[in-house]
Amino acid sequence: MLAQIYKPSLSLLTDLYQLTMAYGYWKLGVHDHQAVFHLHFRKNPFSGGYTLACGLADVVEYLEALRFDDDDIAFLGTLKGNDQQPLFDSAFLKYLRQFRFSCDVDAIPEGTVVFPHEPLVRVRGPMLQCQLLETPLLNLVNFQTLIATKASRVCLAARGDPVVEYGLRRAQGVDGSLTATRCAYIGGCMGTSSVLAAKLLAIPVRGTHAHSWVMSFPTETEAFAAYAQAMPNNCVFLVDTYNTLQGIRHAAAIGKRLKAEGHRMVGIRLDSGDLAYLSIEGRKILDEAGLPDAKIMASNDLDETLIESLKHQGAKIDIWGVGTHLVTAYDQPALGGVYKLGAVRSDGDSPWEYKVKLSESVAKTSIPGIQQVRRFSVGGQFIGDAIYDEPTGLTSPATIVDPRDMYRFKTIGAEAQSEDLLVAVYRGGKRVYDPPTIHESRKRGLEQVQHLHPTIRRFANPHEYPAGLDRGLNELRTRLILKARGAEA
Amino acid sequence: MLAQIYKPSLSLLTDLYQLTMAYGYWKLGVHDHQAVFHLHFRKNPFSGGYTLACGLADVVEYLEALRFDDDDIAFLGTLKGNDQQPLFDSAFLKYLRQFRFSCDVDAIPEGTVVFPHEPLVRVRGPMLQCQLLETPLLNLVNFQTLIATKASRVCLAARGDPVVEYGLRRAQGVDGSLTATRCAYIGGCMGTSSVLAAKLLAIPVRGTHAHSWVMSFPTETEAFAAYAQAMPNNCVFLVDTYNTLQGIRHAAAIGKRLKAEGHRMVGIRLDSGDLAYLSIEGRKILDEAGLPDAKIMASNDLDETLIESLKHQGAKIDIWGVGTHLVTAYDQPALGGVYKLGAVRSDGDSPWEYKVKLSESVAKTSIPGIQQVRRFSVGGQFIGDAIYDEPTGLTSPATIVDPRDMYRFKTIGAEAQSEDLLVAVYRGGKRVYDPPTIHESRKRGLEQVQHLHPTIRRFANPHEYPAGLDRGLNELRTRLILKARGAEA
Repeated sequence: MLAQIYKPSLSLLTDLYQLTMAYGYWKLGVHDHQAVFHLHFRKNPFSGGYTLACGLADVVEYLEALRFDDDDIAFLGTLKGNDQQPLFDSAFLKYLRQFRFSCDVDAIPEGTVVFPHEPLVRVRGPMLQCQLLETPLLNLVNFQTLIATKASRVCLAARGDPVVEYGLRRAQGVDGSLTATRCAYIGGCMGTSSVLAAKLLAIPVRGTHAHSWVMSFPTETEAFAAYAQAMPNNCVFLVDTYNTLQGIRHAAAIGKRLKAEGHRMVGIRLDSGDLAYLSIEGRKILDEAGLPDAKIMASNDLDETLIESLKHQGAKIDIWGVGTHLVTAYDQPALGGVYKLGAVRSDGDSPWEYKVKLSESVAKTSIPGIQQVRRFSVGGQFIGDAIYDEPTGLTSPATIVDPRDMYRFKTIGAEAQSEDLLVAVYRGGKRVYDPPTIHESRKRGLEQVQHLHPTIRRFANPHEYPAGLDRGLNELRTRLILKARGAEA
Repeated sequence: MLAQIYKPSLSLLTDLYQLTMAYGYWKLGVHDHQAVFHLHFRKNPFSGGYTLACGLADVVEYLEALRFDDDDIAFLGTLKGNDQQPLFDSAFLKYLRQFRFSCDVDAIPEGTVVFPHEPLVRVRGPMLQCQLLETPLLNLVNFQTLIATKASRVCLAARGDPVVEYGLRRAQGVDGSLTATRCAYIGGCMGTSSVLAAKLLAIPVRGTHAHSWVMSFPTETEAFAAYAQAMPNNCVFLVDTYNTLQGIRHAAAIGKRLKAEGHRMVGIRLDSGDLAYLSIEGRKILDEAGLPDAKIMASNDLDETLIESLKHQGAKIDIWGVGTHLVTAYDQPALGGVYKLGAVRSDGDSPWEYKVKLSESVAKTSIPGIQQVRRFSVGGQFIGDAIYDEPTGLTSPATIVDPRDMYRFKTIGAEAQSEDLLVAVYRGGKRVYDPPTIHESRKRGLEQVQHLHPTIRRFANPHEYPAGLDRGLNELRTRLILKARGAEA
């Protein structure tokens, strides 16, 4: 969607330190040394059991357009260092102007369920280029994966009922809304209230009227009658402007009249109050009015927890409108994705030197290598993922070691089927991947979640999916950690 | 910033129901009836004592460009209703194509401290036009006000130390980041790490190197030395890749060498671990190395609460890098702003009919009228705000009534000075306001906060600023509520 939305070149959509590091590598003459970086997160969001990958389509659009234009270069030329001298040499700026992307990129397709520590994106190529991508990749993948995951959870809670994304007015800016709508759809929503998003994404758009419509007429009945007169086949009456049960009766009366005239009232919308009680009472009122087809739609700061609770209470809600909590990922508004160096070498003929970054906790200590993920399944159910070093290959028999606790591991039986999750996206800077349509990614997302055991999908204390390090990679990592600690002690 | 960023017309940046309501008003021939709407929020975010208004500059850009182009109209023509017929008449689409904005808009300037229930934006004009603006105004003002408020709190906690906004990689999309950077600056930050935001906004940009720089060299000392060689006057060394205290010693050694060579190490950056302990120990190491000018910068999921705590602990931190928690407003990622109808009349010669929307709670019951806000101050300190009906004028003597509890009120003494907060922005669709520069709005934000009593600025259980309804407006509202309850009982 980036190319549809943004006017300026997004090549400067990066933290300054990526450019100062690029400058450093260039000045030292090591900018073409080879590196491998991986983008991963450390914890499933929302204390959940899984995450839904999203953002790759925009990453591809970003990379397709990645070059520094004259305007970008002119701006970089204005930056000053602490000594008030130009921050960058003009020769470096000339280098940037001519720069062309030449990395290999591998990534996990949108709509795939993923787990902590797995590389969602892997970038291999000249150090300078890999480094430049850190910030934009994180910006695109962190937010989009977060929202797709939230939407997937909301749709799970709705148990197949249609969910409409309603978040434009509370979203984090214009693109915060457009991007959130896209990810909500990939996560399983059936449409949006946002007209611009619907236009740009070619997805369904929904909506009828607000409280202000009702308030602008002398009485609620007159307001509903006027709306029915204007659009007799598109009436979803918002019934809570004054007294909700009274509002439902007013709507039902208009619905009966529409029916007698050969039309059909689509339904009513509840936007406040006790949604369980009001939907059950509302259902009775509509049924008694001979309107069993009239749908009850509900909204009001809903999220997966509230929807699950309303389902347990037997609420008679047919369509769910979910806004603020979905588009801002309210209970965890950021995914802590990071982009870490896995290996370096001075040129294409040298051996790779694997790297780790230490931390107080082993969970935050980085994972070395040139990583790929092998997913195992039995009878259509995903049973475990092993992150392995691609050049070394998977250890046999496959054993998955918890990266936070090497005493926890799972050995995979010979009967398991398996597939690698990362697919080739760029080779030598040339795109070798056609992103699927948003509709295909949505279908994939809905299907993938069904391959997980129900205990992994549940919201409260979900079972932990076995995703970890291939035994061989774990041993390599252990050696590097011990070496780094020794070297620095 | 909208015009700089977005390619497509943003006229469709609205919820579909605004357009179906517009269609309804048009079909019923009441689209040119007059209405007044107000945009307000009901609670200060972050359990705080004040809010900093932001977003008006983008609202003006949005309104300047507001027209439906051929592409917008073509898309609306493809929408279908539940009967699979076109949702909108072609005559209505023709009307939209020719539509020109003709409302009056009044608003509170960016960088002004504001309080619950106060109209941040007031729109008066044809019902159809007022209604269309609901969603885009909320999208622009809700998010921007939220982030400016968060930034203001973070900068208060830092007690005048420079705060750099660092959030690009965790922000909610591309514009989620650009807009957040703008609001963070207006809230008081001194700059950003985002190069594109710095370019578009012409504000300072900061950054040096990441862990990956250190990891790509054989040892930390070699990494720091290489950076110093490349950029001897722009070194802020990130010292926590392996062992932080050791890292500080390595940085201090390079800093001494730079000093001997006539350069100056700018400082070090801490990005993990116990920032209080490490900064105090780090300060000693740097001072003992003869580098008392070297700054200590800190980052790592900081927010106002952590910064306040670090200050209380005597942390020796000179510059604060704040990212995720600032740009996503992590602890409350949405401001619940709403846009409510205050009055209607059939034409310019009829009297205004004032309106309320009921709710279970009086706090959510809307406020009628054509609202303006009078702010009272004594000796440069803000002492209270009265929301009053502009045509009626302020009741004398001025008495401010809590809109949630009419038994709480404050009468303003005759010695108080006062000013109205809403300024004219549009008259009859013509702009009559030049938004101040981002630098002027930042200055205003920093100054405004100083006019509040310190108990209102504090984070824990702040004193409640007296902002409420003018006594006359409160009486009017009470009559309308009782009438509406009676009419609907």
